[in-house]
Amino acid sequence: MPKQVDHRERREAIARALWRVVEQRGVAQLTMRVVAQEAGMSLGQLQHYFASRTAMLTFAMDLASEQTSARVHRGLDKLGDRPHPRDVLRLTLAEMLPLHADARATSRMSAAYVLEALHDEAVHEQARRGLVQGRALVEQVIRQAITDGHIDPGRDPGTETDLLLALTGFTTLIELGVIGPRDALAAVDVHLDRLFGSAGGRTAEGSAGPVPERLT
Amino acid sequence: MPKQVDHRERREAIARALWRVVEQRGVAQLTMRVVAQEAGMSLGQLQHYFASRTAMLTFAMDLASEQTSARVHRGLDKLGDRPHPRDVLRLTLAEMLPLHADARATSRMSAAYVLEALHDEAVHEQARRGLVQGRALVEQVIRQAITDGHIDPGRDPGTETDLLLALTGFTTLIELGVIGPRDALAAVDVHLDRLFGSAGGRTAEGSAGPVPERLT
Repeated sequence: MPKQVDHRERREAIARALWRVVEQRGVAQLTMRVVAQEAGMSLGQLQHYFASRTAMLTFAMDLASEQTSARVHRGLDKLGDRPHPRDVLRLTLAEMLPLHADARATSRMSAAYVLEALHDEAVHEQARRGLVQGRALVEQVIRQAITDGHIDPGRDPGTETDLLLALTGFTTLIELGVIGPRDALAAVDVHLDRLFGSAGGRTAEGSAGPVPERLT
Repeated sequence: MPKQVDHRERREAIARALWRVVEQRGVAQLTMRVVAQEAGMSLGQLQHYFASRTAMLTFAMDLASEQTSARVHRGLDKLGDRPHPRDVLRLTLAEMLPLHADARATSRMSAAYVLEALHDEAVHEQARRGLVQGRALVEQVIRQAITDGHIDPGRDPGTETDLLLALTGFTTLIELGVIGPRDALAAVDVHLDRLFGSAGGRTAEGSAGPVPERLT
């Protein structure tokens, strides 16, 4: 195996060990020593791959974002060449919520990274940049849907983007078992039905779109 | 001062020290030793007031909930004897978001408690119970508003409650500086205007309701 590939694979294995620590033991346990132990290596070996805790965290967060994005794209691939913007937004939001095991791991990683950002300027800037980019992608889908007549042109694309992203607040309700994954998805569908409403919406109130990969 | 009152005051002082640790240094620093130091006492003195880290955390979370609730009630008092349900919901949601310093402290305490809940069954049960109770109060306001003709009877009270609570997801967008407090409140207003819409809504799209205590 080429050295470069092996290096990348080792870093990914460490990142996944970090996810497991976040998911199973919590942010309070998130030290380089604990992650090294979880990854089955010495602290010195881990430091060969990551010079600092922040570098390790940021790589793990980037990997979580890539995985989430890959899940969305696999879902979209099943919808053909020109997926309906409602389905694109539904899949994007659904994969950000802890609706199944893989999404729960990346969702908890994301929550841990945001908490870390509040006390680390480098992490804050990185997290902010990631969210700004994600927000821009969602807004682009909404703007195009307005142009294509799927969403009422009276809607403000920025406000609709913010309202959609704010629904990631379902995470807490789901994680604490206050509502189930199906209730959360049903509420997301109601929101999307209203967004696409009378203008070019192809679905009726309460109807379901494509489901995420698995629902636990 | 009666001993009982002094005991309660010392516990509150410790809880506020815990909030400062959460807000300024993060969950990773949340040990009894660090909180004792922040509260200006020895670990032994702190253990006189709280037998365990979980007991300390839970008291600090209960105090945060009480403070949030008190801010909502102070806001409602200014609105007279029979506040409009739209204003009640707006104040409730606004005070759950980090829109000003006091709300930021309680919001971060809440985020820390939820993260802790994922790895501690006692905390999970406590956090779940608190959120279930809060959710029931919001649903009660929405049900009454439907009965009183302020909200279209075709709306499902449970789904509307979930969608409103999910908007606490604005927290991340605000904390990372992706959108400002004013943009978040404006989006909340758009959501509420749609909820109260044509049936008995007294406000037009984009109009503002009562503002939270301070806006930073």
